[in-house]
This record gives sequence, structure tokens and C-alpha cells, in this order.
Amino acid sequence: MLIVGELINASRKPIAAAIEAQDVEAIKKVARDQYEAGADYIDVNAGIFVGKEAEYMEWLIRNVQEEVDAPCCIDSPDPKVIERGLAVHKGTAMINSISLEKDRYDALLPIVAGTDLKVVALCMSDEGMPETAEDRVKIAEKLIDGLVRNNVKLENIYVDPLVQPVSTKSTFGVEFLNAVEEIMERFQGVHTICGLSNISYGLPVRKLLNQNFAVMAVAKGLDSLIINPLDKQMMANLIAAEALAGRDEYCVNYLKAYRQKKFEF
Amino acid sequence: MLIVGELINASRKPIAAAIEAQDVEAIKKVARDQYEAGADYIDVNAGIFVGKEAEYMEWLIRNVQEEVDAPCCIDSPDPKVIERGLAVHKGTAMINSISLEKDRYDALLPIVAGTDLKVVALCMSDEGMPETAEDRVKIAEKLIDGLVRNNVKLENIYVDPLVQPVSTKSTFGVEFLNAVEEIMERFQGVHTICGLSNISYGLPVRKLLNQNFAVMAVAKGLDSLIINPLDKQMMANLIAAEALAGRDEYCVNYLKAYRQKKFEF
Repeated sequence: MLIVGELINASRKPIAAAIEAQDVEAIKKVARDQYEAGADYIDVNAGIFVGKEAEYMEWLIRNVQEEVDAPCCIDSPDPKVIERGLAVHKGTAMINSISLEKDRYDALLPIVAGTDLKVVALCMSDEGMPETAEDRVKIAEKLIDGLVRNNVKLENIYVDPLVQPVSTKSTFGVEFLNAVEEIMERFQGVHTICGLSNISYGLPVRKLLNQNFAVMAVAKGLDSLIINPLDKQMMANLIAAEALAGRDEYCVNYLKAYRQKKFEF
Repeated sequence: MLIVGELINASRKPIAAAIEAQDVEAIKKVARDQYEAGADYIDVNAGIFVGKEAEYMEWLIRNVQEEVDAPCCIDSPDPKVIERGLAVHKGTAMINSISLEKDRYDALLPIVAGTDLKVVALCMSDEGMPETAEDRVKIAEKLIDGLVRNNVKLENIYVDPLVQPVSTKSTFGVEFLNAVEEIMERFQGVHTICGLSNISYGLPVRKLLNQNFAVMAVAKGLDSLIINPLDKQMMANLIAAEALAGRDEYCVNYLKAYRQKKFEF
């Protein structure tokens, strides 16, 4: 399971405050905590700072990578912000995200074409949000096709089938899950990824829904997640789910996590 | 989700003691607790009492049904025990279980043929335990075919694809899950059911594995479970999983469970 740590996002108040105050230590601590908890990529987002997003993106990446030996997931739809981030990024970054919306697609394709960058391909188009699994798979197919034709390797593509709230429509969860399964079956070698919080929007005890949805998605083949890796219960569930999904030979990781007391919280 | 409450099983020491002491109130309390926690069927098993199993089965069923208005799941491979149980059972019982093992099949088929009894069809044959999803589906197909030809309605059949420990072989979990999915797709109208404890045999923190496996199975289409309904965390996870699987229109049950404080434990 590839884990993208989601906490360095300016939409979160303590992060916005740290960025505004240029508080290097605060950002480094959140980077380190996530890295030590198992994040493979550190998501960086400065989207709320209109006009200063590129400058802050550069600052975030520099500081995160001074602290931890991990690549960043550059979280912006703006090519200028991404390019500024890439200019200082060490190693191979992940871009979050391209979509089938024409403006966004046209702006981001040249950045990833022919590179080894990882890219999140979000199942959204100018026709609006997908509703069914079929809608999602159609958009995924077009995105994958366009990216591969532009020399992005299939294994560098992380399709995000787009989680929508189950409170809005009872089938939104199952349509997402079925899309994950079909995408993983049809495009062998591609990855699937998502964030979780949308699924529980408008409902109480969101953590219960988010955790169970993550585990259900693993059952359907999801192999990457954008989450808070400091959530010990979520991480424990994912370690268990990986073992149950046959992705943990001899349950080695499960037993290691047990010995490291990761199941005690 | 159909829940079979598993606690009245003589392999559990307090139940064995209650049966031996003919302690009516102890049995009734376990029946009532499970019923109030959401069990649709109350499993009754007196298997450890060789020679007295039929007598005790009758006693268990009488007492359970004096206490709660629920059918029993008569848990025995012995036709004499099942028939003695059925003779006193009110309403439509579930039989747990027929299998493709010749002796068991031949003994139990006449009991369920042409009836409205629910029947658990365990994916086990004289060739031993199934390993792959394909093995399981093959046995399921033969069991379903045999039952339907003997006038058992498809919707009264609960296929148990047979959970085996993931500690024995890393793929045992995923093969089970894939079998659930394929059986539910190929035999529309049939049910799938299982117990959980085998999955975590030989591993620490078994509860973590059992819970996550149940939720993963729901994602794959499982619609019935033999569990301890007094496990509040398990029940909360299942209520969330049902909403996420699109089986809870407008999240009505989820919201009701929240108001009833079922997520507080």
C-alpha cells in the first residue's frame, strides 16, 4: 500500500498559520511525524494562498525535503505552481492531479509527458462529476490512453475514481468501489488512489465510515491512499486489510506491526 | 445483512456448563442478548455431547424460542439431531450445514428437499478443503444445482465458501473473497454466509483481522454472517459497511444506529 500523508494542506488551520508565519519547524514536524508513521509521499498544498501559492509551494517542498528523505505529492491544479515546486524537488515527485477537464488536462499534460513523474489522474471531466462505475471507467480510460500516448508509463499513473458522499446518493460508495475493481482489472499495472473524507460528508461518526470504506476499497484492489498516517486505527486496519487481501506474504508486515505495538492504541 | 448469533455453541465453556446443568435461564439470557443486539437467527449447537446431542438440541431450541421470537440455525451435521430439532422448532429454521461430502450430502438432502428451510451449503467435498476461488465456485455450483433440482429455492440457499487461515497461506483470504463475488454474480438470488474466526487462526490481535475481513467480504457481496452480535465494534463496522455498499437507502439504518448510540463503545 502506497500512503500519501495528507496533513500538510493549507486548508487545515494549523498548516495555514505555519505557512503564513513561515514556521519552518512546525512544517518539518508534520513532515517527520507522517514519514515515521509510514507515509511514502508527503502531500504539499498551499492552494488557499492566491497569488502566493507558487512561492509557498517551493518553501514547503524545500523544508519537507530538508527534514525527511521522501518525495512530495505536489497538490495543485496550477501548472505554474507545479513547475515551481518541481524545480526544487529532489527525486521523483507525484503530481496531484490531472483530470479530463480540458483546461486542466491541457495545462498539466505537457508537465508530465515523457517524464518519470507519478501522476494522479482524477476521474472528472467537463461533463461534471461521474455518477456510476461506468462513468468513472470511461474517464479513466481516456486519461490513461492520453497519458500513455504521451509517454507516461502505466505504472506511474494513479487513477482516482473520485469519492462522492454516500449521504447524497446511496450508490455512490458502491459505484466507486466497482470502478476501482474494473480499472485494476482492465488496465493491469495501473494504480488506484483516493482520499476518503468525501465519502462520509454530511454523516455522523465520519471516522467509522472513512475507515471501513478504505478497507472495502482494498478488498476491491485499491493500492494507494491519501490519508492521515498518524491515525493509528486507520493504519492498523490497513495493515490487517493488506494481509487479508493476500498482499502480505506469510503475514510478515502484520506480525512486524504487532511486535512494534502498532495495534495498541 | 442477515446475522446469525453464534454464541449458543457447546464448544464454548459457559454454554457447555449451562447445557449440562440444564440451566434454562442462562441459555435464555444468551438468546435474548443476541436477539436484542440484532441477531436474525440464533445458532444452536450441542455437538460436543456425543449420544445426547439430539436431546440437548431439542432442549436448546425449546428454550431459545420460549424466550425470543426468532428462528434458530440448527448447527449439526447429524440428520437425527436436525430432525429432532425441527420437530420442536417454530417457524422456518436454518440448517447449518449441508456440504458436498457424500455422506453428509446424502443424509441432509432429504431433510431440506422440497421444504422452505434455509440451508447453509458449505463448500467442502470429499476431495478435501478448497484452496482457490475456482475450487469453491465449483463446489458451490454442484451444491446449488443439487439443492435446486430437489426443490430448494435459490433464495433459501446460503453458500459458505469456507474461510481458511491466512496464516496458513497468504492467498486464502483473497481466494475466499473472490469466491463470494463470483458466487453472488453467477447465481443471482443466492446468499453467501460465513463464520470469521478461522481467518485469523494462528495470528495475534484476531479481532482486528476478523472485523476487517467481515467488512471486506461485504464489499465483495457477502450478505449474511455467523458472528457474535454482542461485539459492538463489529456490529458498528457492519452497519457502516452496509451503508457504504449501497445497501442502506438514504443511510436510514446508519443514522438510526447513531441515534441509538450503537457507535459509542
